[in-house]
Amino acid sequence: MARVLVVFGPNLNLLGEREPAVYGTGTLEDIMGAAAALGRTEGVEVDFFQSNSEGAIIDRLHEARHTHHAVVLNPGALAHYSYALRDAIAGIAIPVVEVHMTNVTARESFRAVSVTSPVCRGVIFGLGADSFLLGLRAAVALTKPEARSPKSRR
Amino acid sequence: MARVLVVFGPNLNLLGEREPAVYGTGTLEDIMGAAAALGRTEGVEVDFFQSNSEGAIIDRLHEARHTHHAVVLNPGALAHYSYALRDAIAGIAIPVVEVHMTNVTARESFRAVSVTSPVCRGVIFGLGADSFLLGLRAAVALTKPEARSPKSRR
Amino acid sequence: MARVLVVFGPNLNLLGEREPAVYGTGTLEDIMGAAAALGRTEGVEVDFFQSNSEGAIIDRLHEARHTHHAVVLNPGALAHYSYALRDAIAGIAIPVVEVHMTNVTARESFRAVSVTSPVCRGVIFGLGADSFLLGLRAAVALTKPEARSPKSRR
Amino acid sequence: MARVLVVFGPNLNLLGEREPAVYGTGTLEDIMGAAAALGRTEGVEVDFFQSNSEGAIIDRLHEARHTHHAVVLNPGALAHYSYALRDAIAGIAIPVVEVHMTNVTARESFRAVSVTSPVCRGVIFGLGADSFLLGLRAAVALTKPEARSPKSRR
Amino acid sequence: MARVLVVFGPNLNLLGEREPAVYGTGTLEDIMGAAAALGRTEGVEVDFFQSNSEGAIIDRLHEARHTHHAVVLNPGALAHYSYALRDAIAGIAIPVVEVHMTNVTARESFRAVSVTSPVCRGVIFGLGADSFLLGLRAAVALTKPEARSPKSRR
Amino acid sequence: MARVLVVFGPNLNLLGEREPAVYGTGTLEDIMGAAAALGRTEGVEVDFFQSNSEGAIIDRLHEARHTHHAVVLNPGALAHYSYALRDAIAGIAIPVVEVHMTNVTARESFRAVSVTSPVCRGVIFGLGADSFLLGLRAAVALTKPEARSPKSRR
Amino acid sequence: MARVLVVFGPNLNLLGEREPAVYGTGTLEDIMGAAAALGRTEGVEVDFFQSNSEGAIIDRLHEARHTHHAVVLNPGALAHYSYALRDAIAGIAIPVVEVHMTNVTARESFRAVSVTSPVCRGVIFGLGADSFLLGLRAAVALTKPEARSPKSRR
Amino acid sequence: MARVLVVFGPNLNLLGEREPAVYGTGTLEDIMGAAAALGRTEGVEVDFFQSNSEGAIIDRLHEARHTHHAVVLNPGALAHYSYALRDAIAGIAIPVVEVHMTNVTARESFRAVSVTSPVCRGVIFGLGADSFLLGLRAAVALTKPEARSPKSRR
Amino acid sequence: MARVLVVFGPNLNLLGEREPAVYGTGTLEDIMGAAAALGRTEGVEVDFFQSNSEGAIIDRLHEARHTHHAVVLNPGALAHYSYALRDAIAGIAIPVVEVHMTNVTARESFRAVSVTSPVCRGVIFGLGADSFLLGLRAAVALTKPEARSPKSRR
Amino acid sequence: MARVLVVFGPNLNLLGEREPAVYGTGTLEDIMGAAAALGRTEGVEVDFFQSNSEGAIIDRLHEARHTHHAVVLNPGALAHYSYALRDAIAGIAIPVVEVHMTNVTARESFRAVSVTSPVCRGVIFGLGADSFLLGLRAAVALTKPEARSPKSRR
Amino acid sequence: MARVLVVFGPNLNLLGEREPAVYGTGTLEDIMGAAAALGRTEGVEVDFFQSNSEGAIIDRLHEARHTHHAVVLNPGALAHYSYALRDAIAGIAIPVVEVHMTNVTARESFRAVSVTSPVCRGVIFGLGADSFLLGLRAAVALTKPEARSPKSRR
Amino acid sequence: MARVLVVFGPNLNLLGEREPAVYGTGTLEDIMGAAAALGRTEGVEVDFFQSNSEGAIIDRLHEARHTHHAVVLNPGALAHYSYALRDAIAGIAIPVVEVHMTNVTARESFRAVSVTSPVCRGVIFGLGADSFLLGLRAAVALTKPEARSPKSRR
Repeated sequence: MARVLVVFGPNLNLLGEREPAVYGTGTLEDIMGAAAALGRTEGVEVDFFQSNSEGAIIDRLHEARHTHHAVVLNPGALAHYSYALRDAIAGIAIPVVEVHMTNVTARESFRAVSVTSPVCRGVIFGLGADSFLLGLRAAVALTKPEARSPKSRR
Repeated sequence: MARVLVVFGPNLNLLGEREPAVYGTGTLEDIMGAAAALGRTEGVEVDFFQSNSEGAIIDRLHEARHTHHAVVLNPGALAHYSYALRDAIAGIAIPVVEVHMTNVTARESFRAVSVTSPVCRGVIFGLGADSFLLGLRAAVALTKPEARSPKSRR
Repeated sequence: MARVLVVFGPNLNLLGEREPAVYGTGTLEDIMGAAAALGRTEGVEVDFFQSNSEGAIIDRLHEARHTHHAVVLNPGALAHYSYALRDAIAGIAIPVVEVHMTNVTARESFRAVSVTSPVCRGVIFGLGADSFLLGLRAAVALTKPEARSPKSRR
Repeated sequence: MARVLVVFGPNLNLLGEREPAVYGTGTLEDIMGAAAALGRTEGVEVDFFQSNSEGAIIDRLHEARHTHHAVVLNPGALAHYSYALRDAIAGIAIPVVEVHMTNVTARESFRAVSVTSPVCRGVIFGLGADSFLLGLRAAVALTKPEARSPKSRR
Repeated sequence: MARVLVVFGPNLNLLGEREPAVYGTGTLEDIMGAAAALGRTEGVEVDFFQSNSEGAIIDRLHEARHTHHAVVLNPGALAHYSYALRDAIAGIAIPVVEVHMTNVTARESFRAVSVTSPVCRGVIFGLGADSFLLGLRAAVALTKPEARSPKSRR
Repeated sequence: MARVLVVFGPNLNLLGEREPAVYGTGTLEDIMGAAAALGRTEGVEVDFFQSNSEGAIIDRLHEARHTHHAVVLNPGALAHYSYALRDAIAGIAIPVVEVHMTNVTARESFRAVSVTSPVCRGVIFGLGADSFLLGLRAAVALTKPEARSPKSRR
Repeated sequence: MARVLVVFGPNLNLLGEREPAVYGTGTLEDIMGAAAALGRTEGVEVDFFQSNSEGAIIDRLHEARHTHHAVVLNPGALAHYSYALRDAIAGIAIPVVEVHMTNVTARESFRAVSVTSPVCRGVIFGLGADSFLLGLRAAVALTKPEARSPKSRR
Repeated sequence: MARVLVVFGPNLNLLGEREPAVYGTGTLEDIMGAAAALGRTEGVEVDFFQSNSEGAIIDRLHEARHTHHAVVLNPGALAHYSYALRDAIAGIAIPVVEVHMTNVTARESFRAVSVTSPVCRGVIFGLGADSFLLGLRAAVALTKPEARSPKSRR
Repeated sequence: MARVLVVFGPNLNLLGEREPAVYGTGTLEDIMGAAAALGRTEGVEVDFFQSNSEGAIIDRLHEARHTHHAVVLNPGALAHYSYALRDAIAGIAIPVVEVHMTNVTARESFRAVSVTSPVCRGVIFGLGADSFLLGLRAAVALTKPEARSPKSRR
Repeated sequence: MARVLVVFGPNLNLLGEREPAVYGTGTLEDIMGAAAALGRTEGVEVDFFQSNSEGAIIDRLHEARHTHHAVVLNPGALAHYSYALRDAIAGIAIPVVEVHMTNVTARESFRAVSVTSPVCRGVIFGLGADSFLLGLRAAVALTKPEARSPKSRR
Repeated sequence: MARVLVVFGPNLNLLGEREPAVYGTGTLEDIMGAAAALGRTEGVEVDFFQSNSEGAIIDRLHEARHTHHAVVLNPGALAHYSYALRDAIAGIAIPVVEVHMTNVTARESFRAVSVTSPVCRGVIFGLGADSFLLGLRAAVALTKPEARSPKSRR
Repeated sequence: MARVLVVFGPNLNLLGEREPAVYGTGTLEDIMGAAAALGRTEGVEVDFFQSNSEGAIIDRLHEARHTHHAVVLNPGALAHYSYALRDAIAGIAIPVVEVHMTNVTARESFRAVSVTSPVCRGVIFGLGADSFLLGLRAAVALTKPEARSPKSRR
């Protein structure tokens, strides 16, 4: 049975309270519930990890290479400057799908550039909580044998 | 019954033949077949349009505001410079989801900037033919009543 | 009797419906009506052309060098990237006045640069539908003999 | 009866003598005469002010908010760096139309950027002395009740 | 017998009339005549296509992959922004030689960058009508077996 | 009888050995042989000069204004920074054609800009050893009386 | 009784020892003592937190939204790149005043840009240990009812 | 008894009327009243100067070196370009504290750069009228003997 | 008898007192004395003008076109942004030589760009008080008949 | 006996497994073994520290100022953005030598800039595991008395 | 007796023939004659050196530190890129005055930046052959005892 | 027996005399002596070459591919602009190690970029004369069989 890890970066723990005009009123628990339900439907095990610390997220990604088949990652604002996180993604063999709830290209200019995207397999953003669910579907597809060759779809 | 229009921009007609190391060997027909099948499963009508002409695509998007409820758009390379296409997307009331098969942030630097993304509701890229199918799922969700308020998730 | 061609670029056909908070609720027909009326007052013949296609607009400008004495051009978003349109303007002998309804310098940064302005005889923007009427007055003045020498006022 | 103030910035007093190949041989008096005549035709009172001092122009704009209904402003080269002038324009309630005789986008690159344009209601340039007359027409239209709401057409 | 397609982009139809100080007084017909003559000498069939529409040129290049062995392309001003045209060139297997009549590096700064050049096999500019004839010679050489391996001379 | 000087800049002496994947396996002698043969066919005398020293190349170009009618110049990497070489080209009356064997726009970004190109009459690149032969043909054409007026084709 | 949290970012623990020519010889304890004394005078409770870890500081700010009424934050060098810290500040409802002991605009250029300043309520720098005391005064004022509406003074 | 000069730059005289959504409804008189009161409490004499003229402000700063011990300066928009004002600040021996009422880093991008800040002793912004009062406290501290050595805390 | 006007811009009146480590301890009077003496030797009349006001300097330059044959101008920091001053220089027929006492290219980067230099006839800097004396010599030479044609040496 | 601390930043723990085409197949243990052996030869004590957390590395460097005489630091990707790490290096008195195994100037452009290098005593990169050994030799030399004066070789 | 070396960089040997519209018709011999005459008047020995080779000029400057008291240097286009020449100037103890005949800030943009100016004692340009004579006067002054302290006037 | 060539670029011959505050008082002879001694210890033959001429250094590197096994290169300021030198390094098969005595990232900004580094095998800087000795050790290691495969450590 395939296992997918969903990682939430800095400030995602405030979801539902933080800037609701931007991020909506759903909480992190709501998203985890919906993702777990989709996991059951798709027949994959889904685990979750949230941290506000870059180092802890890197440690968790390193571990994941032994424990999971794919990762759905919302790096939060680390996406815009953390080359260390980028190197961690590039350094593990399993595929990573980057997701953001908001349309990052329609907000402040610094959000339009993600330094982690170039080493992810796919990127999904702007679709609210659905960004996570579509990211999970994408990650599940990437765990299937015919998707294993990274070159086949770049 | 919801109707979704899938638009393929310049050079997409060459899929399967054009730079197969980059875009794979699947053809446009393959993608349309898979999208139509997913549409039947999801209970939405799916139509297709391909053109190499910016003007023709703008015309088609204008029409779509009367004939469809949402659009999945692969603007091809127009994404990187066509402010006229951007204005067309902003000028119609129905939601548009932008998709690219390849990870545009991992290729030439000009592909990392999309001038159309800021006016789309969501963006999905890097997942090959799955980018279209996930985009279709996202578009279907955007036709549902609870997704209608564009401010609710930006 | 002098003849002036008024050209409307991409997305202008949506006027009155498209982003009314930005462009107002007047339609293209309203503008054409007011311009035709002003033409009758000023004793000039006024013709109109709208297209969403860069190539069609270039073709029409080429023709205009044999059929009209001046052009009022709202290039829409083509103003921001179409060097081909710029070359077409530079390549015809008759004077062209560029107009925009909105204050393009007060909106997104990409709108602050027009690649067509340097080869036009004059530019008017920010005055809503009046931009067209003032542009028409300017064009009429440019058809008069004393304005014929392009160097005389640059 | 509506009153419009026409303001001439630095070096405009040299008109007719200064670089005639660029600005023509007409003098400031010629322009003021033509503008006054147009004012009589349109039924508005037109006043004039010229200064080479940024501070004096700011003072005059401040005053104008009590004495006039609209301003036609040729800021001269102050357009390219005077944020203090920009703040003065933004700080008064009456509409300001920026005008330049020459096509500022076709000369030195620094002239292509105006820091005052974003806070003006409209901009007209490249049409020689006619730039002032068209600016005056625009200003008159902006004093009319239906043009009073600044949001209505931006 | 080898077949070469010569493509003329936007505004090339005005040759001989348009800005003769820049482009000379020779017409498009003159160039086609000289190229056809050279083709007869070299024993290749030479065909021609002119359009002001980006989409039509892309369509024609797509077709050419079945009908010709090489292309000589003057993209006109599309060279400076049309990434869609670039993708079309990269997407067809046959070699393309880009030509410009003028020395594009000695004119406006925007002309110094061609987005199509990186995917062409060779580039020739600044030599007037001879640019086309030398481009035709280069294209003929590229149709020969020993030139077929694209890596051999990059 | 016309005389053309072919100048090879820094590192060209390593041709055939240096980075053969980029420059091919032909040697400088091969190119000189082919150029000499073409010269005999075209009825012009062809001379050659190679140096790794900017100063020596400038000296040689200065001399050439008394000894030759045209120059074919491969400046090597000097093209990307040597304003002194640029001034030497601009300072001599005879026409210079710049050539590069590789497509310089498809390699490192610094190679996309040539500071010498704006003062050359024409530029040819990307066609391997043929770049020299086509450059020689261009230079021969420029020695003919009808090509003498530098303004006629810029 | 109002409570204010004073946060010291990376390397502030070295105060008094680190680069004394830049930061002076006073220690962190000296500053905390002076701030506590001022708190007693002003009738507010003042707490302190120092960490060299971005994640720990974000965690502490999240907590502070339940335990304090305002924050005085010296982000240290995190000010120059930590968008995650910026999001944390924007995500909590209580006001944050950013302080730096040195005049950051008069040192290395990277220090002139603070990515956290745009989401703080006020910024004070260049006044040595007094920057903290003035920041504390500002924070106290922001806890008063009439300062609660964030829009009232921006 | 220490004397501090408070200088208000261009457009500050409009306070209370100018863009109240940004600057609030308090007037310059309100601020001067509060500052004078604080001065009495702190035992310093406080004087005021307002001008819209860069030259007059420079003259006043020059004078102040003989009449005052410190300056609180709100340069208004001059902060963003007036290198002459910067030189005036650098040229006088007494300390200057720069203040702005608004958070200049959260508004238009040009306001994020102050050319005067590098030569001031401290900078305070974003705290409304309190910016002046905190600036006055800072200036008073800088007049005390132990603060006289400018190097001691930079 | 030729007449030369020496103009000193903002802050030059502080010479001798202002940042003596940079500008030395000589006063403006010292410089004027030396320049007057040189004027007597060279047989020209030398006048002086100092102001901290951009507007006053522009007025004085305008006047000078009727009263003097050449100008030596130290624009102070206005050199770096005052396009109005630039236009004043361009607008008067008499030659202007720009001088600075310090080596402006060896100080802060903003001083490396002078917007007034392109419209001056010559520029001299870095030689302390001698910059003025050499500038005066240059100005005297420019008043001689053989130097009158501005094109002859540019 | 001198003591040197070798610090390995984020993702270095994956050495031997992570992107072996880039970093080789040697492990961190291999490097530590070789460095320890060299330490024994050179008569210095060598300690090691690895962490993926910026804060933990800063803490360790702070400690090192009491426990070691020099540091060899591979900051990993933190080199490209961590100004906090830079401040930590600058804030401790002992010398730091920065090392990278790969030639960081020959990879992605973001790797060509290290914000930590300017405050290190020396930098060594591109030599694989030897980078560490040469860095250790350099650090040992810097602990010797004659190298103590930091100014002597900058 | 003081000795001054005048150095002429690349292409200066073509003076009188090269682009006479830009550089005039005077030859290098004319300039050397005038400079020698001025040297005799001023009582200094003047020597000359011209080369088109950067290395030869550096060698000559190195020598000059033993043979001359000051240098007048026209680096030609080397001024715009030769950091090696810059280091040579900085590396010798004698003062160097940089001169250019033309107003380098009024020509192509690359000429506006001189990398050698920051390490020269003074710079003079735009005054034709007089630039050399004024440079010689400046150099002579710098050989006098009171000018020896390089810090005294920077 | 392995042979290593040590190359010293422009101005290195002045070592010990040139800017001793920057480069120290050791001479080139001192460095050559130490390097020769280390060569004897390591059992390699070490040769030296110094020149101020870019062309001569390129010639010497070309020769070295037949006479030496590795190069230690201090390119001096050529590192910052000489693409011809870069091409020479890339064009020879033997490994090159670039060294600088000073920490080039801590000096003027132009020194922070080396155009030669990307094609060297390793880079060492900031360690004074030790930079050469460590570079020699690195070069010796690169001559060993196990280091021959250039891909193994990039």
